[in-house]
Amino acid sequence: MYQINENYQKLPGSYLFSTIAKKVKAFSEKNPDANIISLGIGDVTQPLAPAIIEAMHKAVDEMANAETFRGYAPDLGYDFLRNAIVKNDYEARGCDIAADEIFVSDGAKSDSGNIQEIFSLENRIAVCDPVYPVYVDSNVMAGRCGDYNLDTQTWSNVIYMPCVKENDFVPEFPKEAPDMIYLCLPNNPTGTTIKKSQLQEWVNYANKVGAVIIYDAAYEAYISESDVAHSIYECEGAKTCAIELKSFSKNAGFTGVRLGYTVVPKELKCGDVSLHDMWARRHGTKFNGAPYIIQRAGEAVYSDAGKAQVKEQVGNYMKNAALIKEGLKDAGYEVFGGVNSPYIWLKTPQNMKSWDFFDYLLENANVVGTPGSGFGPSGEGYFRLTAFGSYENSVAAIERIKKL
Amino acid sequence: MYQINENYQKLPGSYLFSTIAKKVKAFSEKNPDANIISLGIGDVTQPLAPAIIEAMHKAVDEMANAETFRGYAPDLGYDFLRNAIVKNDYEARGCDIAADEIFVSDGAKSDSGNIQEIFSLENRIAVCDPVYPVYVDSNVMAGRCGDYNLDTQTWSNVIYMPCVKENDFVPEFPKEAPDMIYLCLPNNPTGTTIKKSQLQEWVNYANKVGAVIIYDAAYEAYISESDVAHSIYECEGAKTCAIELKSFSKNAGFTGVRLGYTVVPKELKCGDVSLHDMWARRHGTKFNGAPYIIQRAGEAVYSDAGKAQVKEQVGNYMKNAALIKEGLKDAGYEVFGGVNSPYIWLKTPQNMKSWDFFDYLLENANVVGTPGSGFGPSGEGYFRLTAFGSYENSVAAIERIKKL
Repeated sequence: MYQINENYQKLPGSYLFSTIAKKVKAFSEKNPDANIISLGIGDVTQPLAPAIIEAMHKAVDEMANAETFRGYAPDLGYDFLRNAIVKNDYEARGCDIAADEIFVSDGAKSDSGNIQEIFSLENRIAVCDPVYPVYVDSNVMAGRCGDYNLDTQTWSNVIYMPCVKENDFVPEFPKEAPDMIYLCLPNNPTGTTIKKSQLQEWVNYANKVGAVIIYDAAYEAYISESDVAHSIYECEGAKTCAIELKSFSKNAGFTGVRLGYTVVPKELKCGDVSLHDMWARRHGTKFNGAPYIIQRAGEAVYSDAGKAQVKEQVGNYMKNAALIKEGLKDAGYEVFGGVNSPYIWLKTPQNMKSWDFFDYLLENANVVGTPGSGFGPSGEGYFRLTAFGSYENSVAAIERIKKL
Repeated sequence: MYQINENYQKLPGSYLFSTIAKKVKAFSEKNPDANIISLGIGDVTQPLAPAIIEAMHKAVDEMANAETFRGYAPDLGYDFLRNAIVKNDYEARGCDIAADEIFVSDGAKSDSGNIQEIFSLENRIAVCDPVYPVYVDSNVMAGRCGDYNLDTQTWSNVIYMPCVKENDFVPEFPKEAPDMIYLCLPNNPTGTTIKKSQLQEWVNYANKVGAVIIYDAAYEAYISESDVAHSIYECEGAKTCAIELKSFSKNAGFTGVRLGYTVVPKELKCGDVSLHDMWARRHGTKFNGAPYIIQRAGEAVYSDAGKAQVKEQVGNYMKNAALIKEGLKDAGYEVFGGVNSPYIWLKTPQNMKSWDFFDYLLENANVVGTPGSGFGPSGEGYFRLTAFGSYENSVAAIERIKKL
């Protein structure tokens, strides 16, 4: 008689954003006239840039003719895209990353869930707290996290690095040395980040204790300050300790297009074993490439027109971020983030519980945000709003919140 | 100090089709004038059907406007696609499958590699031999297969069900009861299949011994005989023991488009635990939906025009299959498959080793096929040719083989 993966039984509740969606749906059915504004899930609202649309139409046409039709893509991505990534995301920043160290995928969510597969189940992970739920949940599913404590809302075998206003949201080196360290910078959900010099210390630490850093750079395009690294490979020694994940979702609006990539440097080795070769094997066995049309869309992000257009989109979202942040401040809230990231992280008023504030905001302002506690125990008493709505909705949401 | 997943170290050599690609590349560099015809990897060559192209252009245009732009897709697939699948692939065949039992994905390769995640590492798998390499390799990576024996080319903890000409390529119930049974029918690589009455016996067997069947129906569109099931859910009792995987790659030419789906019936339970809920959780945590544009392409496969167009394409490939099969017979080969599938499976002449025959064919006819032993030990002495080339190339390849 077959048995299931019992680790799934340990997972409490459902995936955060599914829970929010259900709550909003229930409220909406009860209040059909409510004009709900969602600043909750980090989904973009601006349409794809013209250069990207043009590239996709062209690629679709290529698929219509036998001479230009493309079947299976190269396992790890088309050269045209890998080369564009290297040139723009690495060479331009002085990072020495080769095209065959880039693994193109269907998105950073898949990669951030799958990357743990190439590591031992004995490894202990460290995560910032609060944190993007996929890092922990994917490790729970694999059996790496021990047991869940409902009271503390923590896993017995996970090292939590609290990021709270008391430490300026900067994770501190844990007391026990971890094996795998997840860092998302600029951070989701807090919207904060650390300086390049601080990131260098993390690279030094990882190399010293023999840890691997899984570096999620999904929000890199939102960095506005010059002393913040766009890639972990800007730090010396990162190629021997870090894997970098990158998304096209937030810089180019690809949440419904699905494209990402992972960098596994050839110098990254565990003893004699190349992690690059392991990830290539994993990708080659359990994945069959991102769609040709989508990879052409990704290439267009790096064209001159594409770069200008997506930069403007990011600028629009950052205008929302500034507006939301200032508006909340005016309304008396304590707010963080929003400078190098599209997320605004606020302290709930009167230490309200995060989910209570979620309900309060939904019911009284018809505004949807994300409860901080959904991202980890240290997120309790915080709340996330995103700048990915339209300008009009951002204005309207802030007006409503001010009136509360 | 972090450690790697040691199971990867157990995997011998590289993924079959990567090895072939490297061999062909090396030959091609040595013989730049050779006009190589590939009937090797099962990649399609006909361009996408007009109805699909039209749907994709329309979807691309929707992504260009804020009013019609789509961000994150529903985790498990858009309703328009899930409903079209249910209506055409299940209702039309008298199978009672609900839309929310359909999980849309980026392809059957990903699903067939990922599905094992929701099962216990203690489960023992059974596979047909020869078999699509992903089933075994993904279980090796997870640690379910024991150790590899280089001499026998088998894994110590895998139950092999030989499918050879002596048993008409019909797998027999294994002596020891397996927990998870992988069945691909019509079969890749042998191109053969079993009757619906025989499949019913497998469903009965699985329900009796408490095994789950992972049923890969990727080649269903090529079935030409009426007593062969298109879906395992045509068999009574399948909903309590079977998961079905389905690809758009072969019926609609989506190898470079990437779309598939998995059916996990709600009745499929291990004790009290719903496998449907587990797969939903896995999908929701580690996957973010197939691209909107690609899901619209999938929907178009089920439009009236789309259905007629892809049927014609399948018909073209089956003409190639008949041509290759007859041609090989004329040339004195013993051949199988090609009636309900686009694969022709041949006995190598004089019991030549599969890889020797690969080299022989590449060097002397400049034709690329796939060595049977690459699919498992019982594939030794066999060789696979696909009907997915163009008609001209299929004719030319057979002419060359006849002249050997």
